[in-house]
Parts: sequence; structure tokens; C-alpha cells
Amino acid sequence: MDSQLKIYNSLSREKEIFIPIQEGKIGMYVCGPTVYNDVHLGNCRTFVSFDIIYRYLLHKGYKIRYVRNITDVGHLLDDGEDRMSKGARIDQLEPMEVAQKYTNGFHHMMRIFNTLSPNIEPRATGHIPEQIEMVQSILDNGLAYIVAGSVYFNTLKFIEKYNSYGKLSGRIVEDLMVETRDDLKNQDEKRHPSDFAIWIKASDEHIMRWNSPWSVGFPGWHLECSAMSTKYLGETFDIHGGGNDLKFPHHENEVAQNMGACGHAPARYWLHTNMLLLNGKKMSKSDGNTISPQELFAGQSEHISKAYSPMIVKFFMLQAHYRSSLDITDEALIAAEINFKKFMEALKILDNLSLDLFNNADSAPKDKEVESIIQNIYSAMDDDFNVPLAISEMHQLISYINQSKNNAEFAKQISQASWLNLKECYNTFLIQIFGIAEESSESDQVVTDGLMNLIIELRKDVRERKDWSSSDKIRDSLKEIGIQLKDGKEGTEWGKI
Amino acid sequence: MDSQLKIYNSLSREKEIFIPIQEGKIGMYVCGPTVYNDVHLGNCRTFVSFDIIYRYLLHKGYKIRYVRNITDVGHLLDDGEDRMSKGARIDQLEPMEVAQKYTNGFHHMMRIFNTLSPNIEPRATGHIPEQIEMVQSILDNGLAYIVAGSVYFNTLKFIEKYNSYGKLSGRIVEDLMVETRDDLKNQDEKRHPSDFAIWIKASDEHIMRWNSPWSVGFPGWHLECSAMSTKYLGETFDIHGGGNDLKFPHHENEVAQNMGACGHAPARYWLHTNMLLLNGKKMSKSDGNTISPQELFAGQSEHISKAYSPMIVKFFMLQAHYRSSLDITDEALIAAEINFKKFMEALKILDNLSLDLFNNADSAPKDKEVESIIQNIYSAMDDDFNVPLAISEMHQLISYINQSKNNAEFAKQISQASWLNLKECYNTFLIQIFGIAEESSESDQVVTDGLMNLIIELRKDVRERKDWSSSDKIRDSLKEIGIQLKDGKEGTEWGKI
Repeated sequence: MDSQLKIYNSLSREKEIFIPIQEGKIGMYVCGPTVYNDVHLGNCRTFVSFDIIYRYLLHKGYKIRYVRNITDVGHLLDDGEDRMSKGARIDQLEPMEVAQKYTNGFHHMMRIFNTLSPNIEPRATGHIPEQIEMVQSILDNGLAYIVAGSVYFNTLKFIEKYNSYGKLSGRIVEDLMVETRDDLKNQDEKRHPSDFAIWIKASDEHIMRWNSPWSVGFPGWHLECSAMSTKYLGETFDIHGGGNDLKFPHHENEVAQNMGACGHAPARYWLHTNMLLLNGKKMSKSDGNTISPQELFAGQSEHISKAYSPMIVKFFMLQAHYRSSLDITDEALIAAEINFKKFMEALKILDNLSLDLFNNADSAPKDKEVESIIQNIYSAMDDDFNVPLAISEMHQLISYINQSKNNAEFAKQISQASWLNLKECYNTFLIQIFGIAEESSESDQVVTDGLMNLIIELRKDVRERKDWSSSDKIRDSLKEIGIQLKDGKEGTEWGKI
Repeated sequence: MDSQLKIYNSLSREKEIFIPIQEGKIGMYVCGPTVYNDVHLGNCRTFVSFDIIYRYLLHKGYKIRYVRNITDVGHLLDDGEDRMSKGARIDQLEPMEVAQKYTNGFHHMMRIFNTLSPNIEPRATGHIPEQIEMVQSILDNGLAYIVAGSVYFNTLKFIEKYNSYGKLSGRIVEDLMVETRDDLKNQDEKRHPSDFAIWIKASDEHIMRWNSPWSVGFPGWHLECSAMSTKYLGETFDIHGGGNDLKFPHHENEVAQNMGACGHAPARYWLHTNMLLLNGKKMSKSDGNTISPQELFAGQSEHISKAYSPMIVKFFMLQAHYRSSLDITDEALIAAEINFKKFMEALKILDNLSLDLFNNADSAPKDKEVESIIQNIYSAMDDDFNVPLAISEMHQLISYINQSKNNAEFAKQISQASWLNLKECYNTFLIQIFGIAEESSESDQVVTDGLMNLIIELRKDVRERKDWSSSDKIRDSLKEIGIQLKDGKEGTEWGKI
């Protein structure tokens, strides 16, 4: 099964044979969530995609250090506000309290999707000294300038020196001069529109702030990933991943920062996941074309006809290659559900079918076909992690599984050795690599979420009717099973206590 | 139910009426785990105790910011090594990888024990700038001195200024001069044996290190809690908790640091949990008198006759006041199991008993008794969170519940209103405040852990017999249900993938 792994590298825009820096070892960095809000479904797809990549690389025997950060500071909005402190003001909370709440929620969602924990999950606020040192290095190398306590990366100087800004995202610097507007508020402080802040002086209202040689302030958004990947994976590592939307400006600026500080780019292979669509269109809250994981699991959205469990949603995600966009439609989810059941059914048959049904000779007529399908599954995965192709090959295995069960003559055309190979391959890919599990108790939790949403809706109705005794009854009954309701400005929340 | 809350304050060695700094709001800081190893049972008891305190304060209507830190650096061993980097060398891992692994394990255990997440869970390594600033303040105030790149807290100067070192732990400075040996390695650098390091210059081998004005080094162990409590709760807050073993030197030095930096002590009320014994003796790995949570849950220890589920273990913990030592014995666990079942049985009866059984008059003969028991439960909790006393009062409620079920005449002596009060009180305390739950899926996980330990044992046996086909069979069967074994130097580990 040792075909050569090829990975599409966003940097070269080509599939390249994967050669790790150190034989047998891989350093992998994936841009994690910004924890100022619930994780959205597109993020989930990205993290599920990289989880499968991580699991497949583990399966291939690599020793991997997988780092995925938590962005809890420094992500600028167009209005120049730091996203975290904005969240804090709305919720009337300390920023780290907001960050903790949504970090917990993110971890919960990752458990629901049955993903493995990364080896290190560094927080941006936990690496301020490292970020300050990187800013200093960039300044020392003459690639940044200070204006009124803020430090800006000097893109023109950088291009002069390395002739390479825009390589990853394919942007041309002349375009950038017009386009870049990631920091409008401080635009006047920049020498050039494509320059970007690496340290930002905090305004008086800004809650999250640290001392630095230049001002009391906070790091620019792009800086954390440069500093943390360098700290935990070294100045050059193997794989850097993230959502497509991060390619520019985030990853482009990350490359510039690392080159500016260390003289070379951080990662050799850049992987980007594509976006999630809803009914063929980009998701957008403003026009209502959006769906949350919770709404999907609970079946509570105008866009779907019923609830889909987390494992069905995950199985649905496997239907598209990570570099392709994936379109959520009710029809596609129904199809995924049917296929999910088919796959789980085959798993049960595999477990129960006696080895005696198969040919105990050294080889049998259909062995070559079986081995060839298995080889195709590996080849698909080695071809830039082509999960949907691997899945379609697994459909063929299912056909062999079902025919073996229903037709003794058919089974006899497969040797016991081949059957064991088939069984191992099927189990390995479905469970270990794709991380598909029987609906777990964490998914039971999700069913609970859906029911609770419904109950809260019903309670709202009876309260609008001023039917206080029914309202009290709902509250009391929930209390008895250990669930407490909490009415707030933004609706009713519930918790187990 | 609004009796006045009294809390035993380690500082005054008295029960004091609890008055928060800001009415209705509480800042609470609890020293969290050092994540260089699996969390031990004594820690679990401490965190369960403070979870109940947190839940009771929430129930009383306080708005609470509960901060519990993660110590991932700076905890010195006697040999002068930083615990994290020691763990890293053993495991051949990056220190933050060790920290992440054991942080994940700790969170998992806290879910198993059904505790609530703190509002903020800051990491020591995530607050280096804050710690450096605090060292600088202490230096500026003339209460520390620099020797060879390390910074030491000057306890004699501190006593001269505040006349109060040793107040919390009740130690006398003259004794301290002889006793203190927390930093033997650098003893020669200290002016006085009771002085302690607040910044330590890193030796060449030391992996975790940061720049500072004094040296490339790392913060002293005690410093993180001073810096992080100040950051998230302010210079003075309400409650500081931790295990008794932290009273000295950790908390004593924390007070000294805060006074040294800010001029006043950090917390008004200091709460300390007492230790866990095993068969009447202090737990100790060296003489085998020890038991881990996993061993308890799986029943795999010479000290116990059978497995005890997490909820039984938790219920057992409720049998002693947090300030008393708690002795684990098989007999006590069996008793806890019987009582746990009795409590859960009563919960079911409460749910099912019809309100019609009770008297629908405004009052009935036994109402006063019921109300008085309820009042006693609150009084017990208001008396320094006397959980075992509250539990014994709840045994009385159970007697009322059982008699009401078995004897219609008895039930008629309780009014419906009183019965509803009883029901609410019982539910509130058992489920919401003590955090007792039906054995959850997380505890199912624990059963799985136990079974897996057994299977690994069995597999070891067959492998010692060189029965490779049975060994392979075990591995294959596990694989089919999604469990993978991994043999390593320190035995066999398993994981779901």
C-alpha cells in the first residue's frame, strides 16, 4: 500500500510528491478558530478535513506534531475594533471569559464530530512575548516601521528584498495597492496600502493590552500564527493548513512575517480547504442563507426538512474533496444519510460474517479484484487526500460485502486472506481515518440540544399566552431532570446543573 | 432560606460572616492542577469541593467570576528542575505537548465528575508579561533583590515593612529560617533561607524560557497565581481556594507577592480543602498506599473489592466536610454506594408520586417538620458549606419521601405546597448543587476504561504464553469496534480512532 503521497501545494499550485523535512516526522500547523462566537459549520468542515488528513498521515506511520491555535485576540474588524473586546462589550464580560466560553463550545463541537485533539493548542494571548520578539526581529531586519506606537510591515521593502509578496495568494502588488483595506482606521499611518500592522497601539477603550517597546497595545492578527508555529514547529516545518478565506491576507502576511523575521518561509506545503455553500450560494447571515451545526442536528431550519445527526453531517462532508466547495442541500443530506446507513450496515455484516464462508485456498478468483479496490482506496488518499474517491471505492467493497453475505457461491470466490484484508481496510478507513463512529453519546447530547430548543420555543408560546402554570410546569419538569432555564436579553439559555 | 453565609477563613482561623466586596458579586480563584501528570484523586476532591461551593454560591444568586488556573510551568521540584521540562524529558516531548495531553486528561476527568467549567482557565505560560511586571513592581518597592539573573523575594524586608509573613500558615519566621528548603539548588544565592525565587535564570538545559529584564529564565512557581488572580479578579477579590498542602509555601508567598507588588493581600477569604487518606494513611506512591481515579472506577486495586463508578466516588466525597480529611476505605465506598442508590431511588419516587396523594389544604400537620428540614439543609450549607450535614438532613427528606409513597395516611399529613417545596429542595441540592447525576455516558466511558484495562491484561497473558493467534484476535476484534492498541515502553495504551 506504499504508494507515494502527493499533496496539492497552494504555493506552487501543483500536486507535489510529499517529502517531509525529517524522514518519518511531520510538523503540521492549522489555523484554529477565533473564539468570540460559536464555531460555524464552515470552520467545522475545515477542522474535520484536517482531522482526516492528520489521521491518514498517522496511519501512514508518521510521527506528527499537530498544532492548532486558538485566536483569542488580535483579529481586527473593519471598524478597527478587536473582535474579542467587541464580543466582551456585547456580553458584558471580561474578554477572557468570552474566550473561555467559546473555547469550551468549540471543544465540545470537535468532540461531537469525533475529531482528535491536536498535540498543542496554543492561545494567541498566551504568546505575547514571542510575538513582541518577532516584531523586533522584523524591525531589526529593516522590514517594518513604527508610527505613533504601532508597527507596520513594510511590504514595498519586503518586495524589494525578496521579490515575492503575493506568491501564495497569486495577487499582484499593483492590485494590492488598490485593494487592501484590512485596517482602514489606521490607513493614514501606513506608508503603503498593502502594509499591515504587526503591533497596534491600543486606544483607551481597548481592553486587551500589553506592554511592548513601542506602546501599550496588542499584536496584529497575522502575527500569532507566525510566532506560535515557529515556537512549536521550528522556523521551517512541513504542512500549513487553513480555510481558503485565510489565504489572503492572513497566510500571505504570515509568510512575509516569517521571511521578514527568519529569512525564509515557514511551511513547505500549504493546504487550503474550500468553502461550504448552502443551496448553491455562499452562506451569509444578512440574507438568511445560513445554517448552524446546532440547527442541522436539531432539524430546525427552513433550509432542511428534518434533523441530521452529527455523524450524518460528517459523512456528508466526506462527499466532496477538501479543495472543492461543498453545497449543503436537503437532498444531498438525505443521500448522505442513506449512504451512511449503508456503510454502517456493511460494518455490521463484516463483523458477523463467518470466515468459513470464504475460500480457504491460498488464492481465489476474485482476490485480485478485491486487492485492486483496496489499492485504489490508498491511491485515492495518496492523491491529495481524495476522500470522495476513496468513499466511492468503498462502495465497491460494500457490494462485495453484501454479495458475500447473500450468495455463498460469490463468497467462495474470495480467499479468506483477501476477505481479512478487505475487512481490515474497510474498518481502518471508515473508523480510524474518516473518524466515523456509531452515533455516540456526544451525539445524544445533540439530540438533547434539539429537544431543548423545541421546549424553549413551546415555553415561549405559553408565556406569550400568559399561561403561567404551563410555563412553571415546564420549568419544574426540567429542573427535575437537572436542567435549568435562564432567561436573558438574547433569549432563553439552558444548562445542566 | 436566606440565612447568613459563614465561611471558615484560614487567615483568621475563624468562621466569618461572608460579605462580598461588591454586593451580589463574587470573585473566586482556585489553584488548579499542574499538568505534568495525570490528575490524582486528592486534586479531584479539591476541585469537586470547590465546584459545590461555586454551585451553591450561584444558587444563592451571586454573579461569580470563577478562575482556576492551569500550571504548565514554574513548579520547582526539590532537585531544582522545572516539573514540566522534567515530564518532557521523560516523555521525549515538547513541554507544551505534555501540558496539552494532561490538560485534556484533566478536563476529561472534570467532565466525568460532572463539575462545571470555571469562567476563566488561565495558563501560567500564557501570562509571562504579567508575571514579569509583577516581579518589577516588587523590585521597585524594594522587596526583592537580583542575584546572577534570578530575582528573590526579600522576606526579612517584607516582615520589616508589613510585620505579617507567615500569617496564613501560622509559621513563625524564626522557624522558617530553619525549615524552608523549597529551592535548595539556589540556596547560596538567597540572603535568607525563607526568601524565595520569583524569577529564575534558566540553566542551559532548561527548555521553557523567556526573556526578561534580568535573564532568560522562567517565573517562580508562586508568582503565576498572584499575577493571574490580579489580572482577572483585580488586586483584591473575595475567595481564594486550594488544597491544604498549598497553604505553605504557595499561598503564603502569594500573599507576600501581592502585598509586595500592590500593597495589600489579594483575597479576603482563604479556603483550604483537607487531604484524602487511604485506609487511614496518607497516600504515597513509594509505599504502594495509593489509588488513582481510574483504578477506583475500574475496581483494579488491591485496596478495593470492586469497581465504584464516578458518581459513587463523588457521592462518597460528600460524606466529609471539605476541611476534614476523608479516608478512602472499601467499607466506606460500599456504604456510599448503598446511600447513592437510596438517594437516586428517592429521586425517582419524587418524580412519580402524584400530587393528589397530598393534602390540598393550605397547611397540614407535618408541614412544619418538612419546612424545618429544608431550613436545616440551607443552614448546614450556610455554615461553611457543611455538605455532610446537609446530606444527613436529606436522609430525613428521603424518609418522608418513602413514607409518603408507602403510606397514604402519612402523605395526607403533608400539604401539596410543602411537598412541592420538599421536591424542589431535594432536586436542587442533589442535582444542581452537589452535581450528582444519573450515571452518564461519560461514566460509561469509565466502564469502558475498566474493561480495556482488563483486556490489555489478558492480552499480556496470552502474549507471555506466545499465543500469537489469540493476541491477534484481541487486536482485530478491538479494531472492529474502533479501538486501537499501541504498545509502548510503559505498557499498552489504547485509543478510539
